Amino acid sequence: MSAPSLPQDEYEHLDAFWRAANYLAVGQLYLLSNPLLHEPLRAEHIKPRLLGHWGTVPGLTLIYAHLNRLIRQRDLDMLYVVGPGHGGAAMQAATWLEGSFSEAYPEVPRDAEGMARLCKNFSFPGGMPSHVGPEVPGSINEGGELGYSLSHAYGAVFDRPDLITTCVVADGEAETGPLATAWHGTKFLDPARDGAVLPILHLNSYKIANPTVLSRIGDEELTALLEGYGHTPYLVSGDDPQSVHRDLAATLDRAVDEIGEIQRAARDGTEHGRRRWPMIVLRTPKGWTGPEQVHGRQVEGTWRSHQIPLARPAGDADQRAALQEWMREYRPEELFDEQGRPRAVVTDAVPAGRRRMGANPAANGGVSSRLPLPDVRDYTVTLDERGGAVCSPTEVLGGFLRDVMHASQEQRNFRLFSPDELESNKLGAVYEATDRAWQAEQADVDTELAPDGRIMEILSEHTLQGWLEGYLLTGRHGLFASYEAFIHIVDSMFNQFAKWLDATRELEWRRPVPSLTYLLSSHVWQQDHNGFSHQDPGFLDHVTRKKPEIVRVYLPPDANTLLCVTDHCLRSRDLTNVIVAGKQPQPSWLDKDEAVAHCTRGVGVWEWASTATGDPDVVMACAGDAPTRETLAAVDLLRQHLPELAIRVVNVVDLMRLQPPDEHPHGLPDEEFETLFTTDSPIVFVYHGYPSLIHRLTHGRPNRDLHVRGYQEEGTTTTPFDMAVRNGIDRYGLVIDVIDHVAGLRQHAAGLRQLMLDKRIAHDVHTREHGEDLPEVRDWTWGRPQTRGTSREEGESR
Amino acid sequence: MSAPSLPQDEYEHLDAFWRAANYLAVGQLYLLSNPLLHEPLRAEHIKPRLLGHWGTVPGLTLIYAHLNRLIRQRDLDMLYVVGPGHGGAAMQAATWLEGSFSEAYPEVPRDAEGMARLCKNFSFPGGMPSHVGPEVPGSINEGGELGYSLSHAYGAVFDRPDLITTCVVADGEAETGPLATAWHGTKFLDPARDGAVLPILHLNSYKIANPTVLSRIGDEELTALLEGYGHTPYLVSGDDPQSVHRDLAATLDRAVDEIGEIQRAARDGTEHGRRRWPMIVLRTPKGWTGPEQVHGRQVEGTWRSHQIPLARPAGDADQRAALQEWMREYRPEELFDEQGRPRAVVTDAVPAGRRRMGANPAANGGVSSRLPLPDVRDYTVTLDERGGAVCSPTEVLGGFLRDVMHASQEQRNFRLFSPDELESNKLGAVYEATDRAWQAEQADVDTELAPDGRIMEILSEHTLQGWLEGYLLTGRHGLFASYEAFIHIVDSMFNQFAKWLDATRELEWRRPVPSLTYLLSSHVWQQDHNGFSHQDPGFLDHVTRKKPEIVRVYLPPDANTLLCVTDHCLRSRDLTNVIVAGKQPQPSWLDKDEAVAHCTRGVGVWEWASTATGDPDVVMACAGDAPTRETLAAVDLLRQHLPELAIRVVNVVDLMRLQPPDEHPHGLPDEEFETLFTTDSPIVFVYHGYPSLIHRLTHGRPNRDLHVRGYQEEGTTTTPFDMAVRNGIDRYGLVIDVIDHVAGLRQHAAGLRQLMLDKRIAHDVHTREHGEDLPEVRDWTWGRPQTRGTSREEGESR
Repeated sequence: MSAPSLPQDEYEHLDAFWRAANYLAVGQLYLLSNPLLHEPLRAEHIKPRLLGHWGTVPGLTLIYAHLNRLIRQRDLDMLYVVGPGHGGAAMQAATWLEGSFSEAYPEVPRDAEGMARLCKNFSFPGGMPSHVGPEVPGSINEGGELGYSLSHAYGAVFDRPDLITTCVVADGEAETGPLATAWHGTKFLDPARDGAVLPILHLNSYKIANPTVLSRIGDEELTALLEGYGHTPYLVSGDDPQSVHRDLAATLDRAVDEIGEIQRAARDGTEHGRRRWPMIVLRTPKGWTGPEQVHGRQVEGTWRSHQIPLARPAGDADQRAALQEWMREYRPEELFDEQGRPRAVVTDAVPAGRRRMGANPAANGGVSSRLPLPDVRDYTVTLDERGGAVCSPTEVLGGFLRDVMHASQEQRNFRLFSPDELESNKLGAVYEATDRAWQAEQADVDTELAPDGRIMEILSEHTLQGWLEGYLLTGRHGLFASYEAFIHIVDSMFNQFAKWLDATRELEWRRPVPSLTYLLSSHVWQQDHNGFSHQDPGFLDHVTRKKPEIVRVYLPPDANTLLCVTDHCLRSRDLTNVIVAGKQPQPSWLDKDEAVAHCTRGVGVWEWASTATGDPDVVMACAGDAPTRETLAAVDLLRQHLPELAIRVVNVVDLMRLQPPDEHPHGLPDEEFETLFTTDSPIVFVYHGYPSLIHRLTHGRPNRDLHVRGYQEEGTTTTPFDMAVRNGIDRYGLVIDVIDHVAGLRQHAAGLRQLMLDKRIAHDVHTREHGEDLPEVRDWTWGRPQTRGTSREEGESR
Repeated sequence: MSAPSLPQDEYEHLDAFWRAANYLAVGQLYLLSNPLLHEPLRAEHIKPRLLGHWGTVPGLTLIYAHLNRLIRQRDLDMLYVVGPGHGGAAMQAATWLEGSFSEAYPEVPRDAEGMARLCKNFSFPGGMPSHVGPEVPGSINEGGELGYSLSHAYGAVFDRPDLITTCVVADGEAETGPLATAWHGTKFLDPARDGAVLPILHLNSYKIANPTVLSRIGDEELTALLEGYGHTPYLVSGDDPQSVHRDLAATLDRAVDEIGEIQRAARDGTEHGRRRWPMIVLRTPKGWTGPEQVHGRQVEGTWRSHQIPLARPAGDADQRAALQEWMREYRPEELFDEQGRPRAVVTDAVPAGRRRMGANPAANGGVSSRLPLPDVRDYTVTLDERGGAVCSPTEVLGGFLRDVMHASQEQRNFRLFSPDELESNKLGAVYEATDRAWQAEQADVDTELAPDGRIMEILSEHTLQGWLEGYLLTGRHGLFASYEAFIHIVDSMFNQFAKWLDATRELEWRRPVPSLTYLLSSHVWQQDHNGFSHQDPGFLDHVTRKKPEIVRVYLPPDANTLLCVTDHCLRSRDLTNVIVAGKQPQPSWLDKDEAVAHCTRGVGVWEWASTATGDPDVVMACAGDAPTRETLAAVDLLRQHLPELAIRVVNVVDLMRLQPPDEHPHGLPDEEFETLFTTDSPIVFVYHGYPSLIHRLTHGRPNRDLHVRGYQEEGTTTTPFDMAVRNGIDRYGLVIDVIDHVAGLRQHAAGLRQLMLDKRIAHDVHTREHGEDLPEVRDWTWGRPQTRGTSREEGESR
């Protein structure tokens, strides 16, 4: 497109800000001191370890300068998401220039002293990271691990109609799977009720050591690809600053105009259906304005500018001279006064107050909005008996979530995220309150799809996690419901988010954000039919390796406890919560008040299930719904056959209670732990996942007579109870465990032990013949007075 | 395009095979017995649990029938990769019809008895999975977790110029990130030396409960997207079998013609540069040929056909009648004789022998090709002293890998896979032997890119893992070199692959495949500069939760042991190997013969480093390069300051030696473990990753006086030694650990303890001032006779 010429004063402001930011970025990469070059560069001014990245800087600062112009001219509400890795120096420079950096870090003021500190602290022990981490004002995307910028950008603008998030997508990052599918956000963004994302695909052509795919497929193929993603791409290309400034300014104007038109048409009802959103492809040299050649090899415009173009300026006088020349070419004397303060030509180009991208209220923790929650007690099921009120816990929860959706209809500050599994996970009641967000074509037969729906379903856990993170980090609330096994798809995203949260604990200027809560259903004990590939409870092991301060794990044994736990998680801030709950019908154990009390404690003795009044012969502990069911069935068998045995049943809802208090804020003090678990009675602990996690969490607790049962990676296509048997968490196996571990019992209860083995065999024979469990293991008799104390024979079913 | 008409006999064969496969798939979903419907369907013929998926079946069988036609007419070498989930019933039906299924499972012959068993065993306890798992002949992609079909397909055809892999991409699966970026395989596939991938994007419009994105963006936008990925898409669409048969046959002919032209032009040198590869978009109804409506609601062509269209035929006579009618509409009497054998109209459509897709030699373990390996001893470094020969272990390994590349040049059966990090990980020597595969545009300044290169670099761990899996499962060799922290990106892919390998252990008809070996460099102790987001050693915890029979973990302490371990891994089969090794210069500890012996044992006492001759006062154990360095530095300090202390140094290369032998095939027997680690001396164990893994692996070992140091999730941007200090694996901290845990030492060595604390503080002060470690912690003095036994003062550096 032929761009109109840019007014001279605008050009000057743009260029001054760009030069100033680039200058400061180079200073951060290299300088321990003397950032204003008030004296000739000497070796001692140079950092001993050069750890920054130059290549992406000039592109990021260029865009920042231009967005400032847009914001000022149009009073825009804009966030800036940086996809390229190692963009920290650029963003620290830009936010320092606009003042938001010094507001977060008063010890780094906008003067010579502050500038020196800014430079020294970058990528320095105890200082700032080389990425756009949480330490950088305005950031919601670190760019440490790559690929999440675009989904973060979408998450930030959902339900925030006035916000535009400009998202710089790096061409290296664009090769990742998460980024490649995040473009499909165009089919989920509502121009009427959501804000807009303006992607800028920055083609600087190289990664660390390789060309990038998207920079080498030609404009025609690239344009087709981006149109295929639902965009109208505008190309800005060049290496002459003046013409790039002119073209980029005009193109940004055009893009923001188009965004405005799309939104106006959708909001005043004149247009329906999906429109092509504008985006920009910016093709500029990697390491632009840096050294063109070093030792005869081209550096600017190649991968060699990715990190430190001049590798040894401390030890090499020629390189030091080149560094000084490089910095002087930005004409710092025009940009900063003698005291190091940015001059008017720079600061006049900067938006004011909360319009600065480093101080946008959507960033830095977002606007803290309360989630209106109905009283969770209104949704609990009523028990006539222990093990009664058989129901799908997630289905019960669905009713609560439906009303959370209802209650948040005005504020629009709550969304549900799921990879096409809400219905499968029995949470479908939420569709009574809102629809699935959907901007693409609809067929007559389709149901529950709408442009303004607040249920996000796409078959990409990466996209969902990215959207949710963006939504939370800008102050809203959400829940991620997924299959347990496949949540490992976002293991690495979880790592990055957990590290982000952990780092924010020391940043008081960041407001607390609503927690990231996972609801894992269709769990390992309910994946008998889908088979081995769907069986993996290891996400709990994964999350519990991150900082205890930000990790919570809940294993509610029934519907009422699931309600209580979810309510608690939705109220929490700055945490990652993982809840595991089944979708298949389960017995209920605790009534409303008991559930609240039990979840508040997180762990407790179930007296009504225990036969021990004082010291027990055995502690039967359980964590998880299937473990609880099998434990109570085993207790039922034991009280029938060995009524004299003193059993204590302990149920664990909050897994973190098992850790010592010096290892986790929820950790039980040793004396409380011993009161529950004793110091020397054998413990048969049935756990939802891999047994080693219980050993890890209880490491150092005094009672070593601990026998943990759980998933042992034994799976196949089979029945639910066969899954329990294969992994040794079945009631028969637990009775055998008790017999084997309580001193003296093995001889005394040899008959019962054999009976249990026989029952396992009978079950196996039945399963392989009929393809389903024996009815007696599916039905539930615990707590029915008429069966209490009577012995049932093998094969007898109700 | 207007398709030529299909000869009547070809149509009849296609349609007969399709109907037969669909018939058998329905039988698998529903029937316990009576699969030929020789008697009217009764309740007891129906499975009690209906656990299959119908929706994707008719598309998969349709394509299978058409590929058979192509294979027969052109004598093609073809693999079939099934992207849609739950496609098992389709593929078992098709392979049973062609005979390859019965060759793998002689107990399931091609007759009425076999048919009954085929039906009953599907998704049944002890039977076959509902996915296209390793149990299904011809499969290299399970489709349990979705998204990997296309990268698997590419991996299968690299270096196999005669092979065409047809890859059915599901429209649900296409929403995943890994699939979305796998399309870029077009820029890496060499038409001269590789085979071809023919993607068929199957738009059946729905996932479990939602429409799919790609089916709802219109043909124009979809075409743009696929052209943007580098393809020429051909659309086949319809719900009339006859016209779809005709169009699909003609389109497949055209696509395979084009593939042939592209390959011929590249191979005879008449064309250079990348060409657009053909692909097919197939738009047919979900659950096609199944019940159109059930209880008045549309099922065929909607998400309601995803699983079981008729939900209760056992208990509902109307549904049973509908099921019978549905099956009879396929006219089984035309397809099978009275004995249940497929008639000629079906079998005549099937290719012969190894041309059958269920029996293709590239599948089912691939052609077992030996990897020519040079003698690893020729690459070892020579030690003048312990801790000498300081070098980058991965750089040394690079020389070996370069020559593996050289040696495999003729066979082309080895590739390296890395996310743009080979150079960064100092493995760049391999470029002397081959280039990076690259079909896209090149710039003058580019280096080491070539269409036929065997180094695969794309910034997508998902794509690399998928390519490598496809390459290995078809019998070739490879190595995945990556950053340690970001390998979590493929956690879930690892899970799926590990489960695949585990399941193949019971399938004797599958040949062993070369192992999947990860080389994790740029590890947690060398990520001080990149900061917290790059620090995560948890992949080892992740992999060690999978079946011990297929998991190996190696932590070579230096260059020579890295060479030995890598050589071993490249020779292994049917395993997943994880090697962690640093790229920064490291001291070397073992000479050539010692390294071989030590790696063969996997764990051993380093007598030369120990001061104990008999029972030690303390065992200092280490696993990993940084832990070994710090441990030996601590021993050095201890022998200077406490020469009377009896120290035993144990180094662990093969982490799995720590487990008991009943938990891992490499596990040390208890008596050997005790010989090394004693039963009661305190053990200070410095481990590369999270300490809890060592506790887990040694769980149950008698010596409980175990103190493990490792990564404690304490990280930031800092220096290497500060990372060690923050996590307590530094030499000073280890000396303190020894003092604290050896009985009576604390009082005796109070001065040394204080000295160590002082040294830590001095280091911290220096680091924060100068931004780098004190030289004394980076340089290496261990083993130099002149420093042995003399005391060095704090601050004194060499």
